[in-house]
Amino acid sequence: METVVVFGLGLIGGSMALAIKNENRTVIGVDNKDGHAKKALELGIVNRLGNIHDVAKAAVVIIAIPVDFAPELTLKVLDLIKPKTLVFDVGSVKSAICKAVENHPKRTNFVAAHPIAGTEYSGPEAAFKQLFYNKKNIVCEPKASGKPFLEKALGIFEELQMTTSFMQAKAHDKHIAYVSHLSHISSFMLGKTVLEIEKDEKSIFTMAGSGFASTVRLSKSSPNTWTPIFIQNKTNILKSLEEYIKNLNQFKELLKQSAEEDLYKSMESTHHLKNILSEIK
Amino acid sequence: METVVVFGLGLIGGSMALAIKNENRTVIGVDNKDGHAKKALELGIVNRLGNIHDVAKAAVVIIAIPVDFAPELTLKVLDLIKPKTLVFDVGSVKSAICKAVENHPKRTNFVAAHPIAGTEYSGPEAAFKQLFYNKKNIVCEPKASGKPFLEKALGIFEELQMTTSFMQAKAHDKHIAYVSHLSHISSFMLGKTVLEIEKDEKSIFTMAGSGFASTVRLSKSSPNTWTPIFIQNKTNILKSLEEYIKNLNQFKELLKQSAEEDLYKSMESTHHLKNILSEIK
Repeated sequence: METVVVFGLGLIGGSMALAIKNENRTVIGVDNKDGHAKKALELGIVNRLGNIHDVAKAAVVIIAIPVDFAPELTLKVLDLIKPKTLVFDVGSVKSAICKAVENHPKRTNFVAAHPIAGTEYSGPEAAFKQLFYNKKNIVCEPKASGKPFLEKALGIFEELQMTTSFMQAKAHDKHIAYVSHLSHISSFMLGKTVLEIEKDEKSIFTMAGSGFASTVRLSKSSPNTWTPIFIQNKTNILKSLEEYIKNLNQFKELLKQSAEEDLYKSMESTHHLKNILSEIK
Repeated sequence: METVVVFGLGLIGGSMALAIKNENRTVIGVDNKDGHAKKALELGIVNRLGNIHDVAKAAVVIIAIPVDFAPELTLKVLDLIKPKTLVFDVGSVKSAICKAVENHPKRTNFVAAHPIAGTEYSGPEAAFKQLFYNKKNIVCEPKASGKPFLEKALGIFEELQMTTSFMQAKAHDKHIAYVSHLSHISSFMLGKTVLEIEKDEKSIFTMAGSGFASTVRLSKSSPNTWTPIFIQNKTNILKSLEEYIKNLNQFKELLKQSAEEDLYKSMESTHHLKNILSEIK
């Protein structure tokens, strides 16, 4: 019987616990939100609740708490584990955590992972076993992980039916700012803009259709999760956000001038996305 | 046997033709893109192809061409129809077309409609019978339509299982700028921003997940349809776009300062959207 300790029992950690739990594994859950912990136990997401000291008997420890607290917790966990314990995190920003553990004597026990999976919902109630099925997964700085630990982690990701690729943390954080973090900001601010005008124009949402719903879907995501992600990946996000605002301003100017042909071209230029999007799961 | 003439056999017109065609109705299709017309016939979307002169024998004429040509075509159609023929359009901007027909002797034959339905795909291949099922529909300036014509149109919308509400064209155009047109611009420009950075960062799309896909889905929409919509509803869209850019800039400033609490609040403020979105079909 293998013991797995999962820190953070929200959408990601809870789904990870559900996906990993089987007759050969006991999953112990830790969540400093009392409500989350109780709910996760009640929903059968974990076998029992525990605390930081349970990591001493764990074969695997999973860090799925918000990224602002993950580096500190990971260091503490590395201090307490036995020599053969694998520790991996699942956060959306990778430089800070890789930097934090860099010189830890048990650095090789750690694998920095980012499963590209999620929904706009949060908390243990949102967790489901199939969240990671057929999804992409990024492992950062794989050479800094010891071979047996990396192999054990890759085995788990394969068991969850994710496809893993490898990247440096710096490249990960730059790219993910564009293809994930920026989408969330765009969606949060679109929701905000429409809610502001709705104060004066009561019936506005009676006209909203599926296009609006799709574009603002991510604005339902948890501010608890996303505030620290934005702050930790600030430099990359600011750059992507500036480019996005620049493009919106250019579009605005073209529209002001009713520059039909240029507006058309500006939209036409995204058509290459069609092929890319058809491959995204 | 009732004859219906549909102008424009793309996603909306094609779906309308498919939904309306039955053993008691012959649908004649007109599309000045030869490819579209042939394809629509081939796919069985219409019973046969025709031209503007077919409206003389039509019981119903549906205008589903891009909004820059719709007002002119509608005037021509009103000139040619018999006294009892109903004409309605399905465009996404309503002031221009309502203004154009305002003083036409057959104004009462016309109903200005906007079914809030669509997908990111375009052309006759994208058309499907169920597009309008359970969707909202807006009829503008209902008092300018003659009672029998309005009733006939409402009967058709009900047959398609849409729920119709009524608005003035000016209010429609203002509101739709926020809940539809702005979403499209936000999505087009997000797609553009990420494609631009992808030129230097080749592997960026291997990291894109379902969140990105959902946010840029609308950027696959047809520039042919959307360029004239943006230009025709320019004043309202510019206003919504300015507010959106203002919110993005505010968010950027907060992020620059790592203003955790304010960033949190800014995102938290959209939570009311959760309830609204769950009602959108």
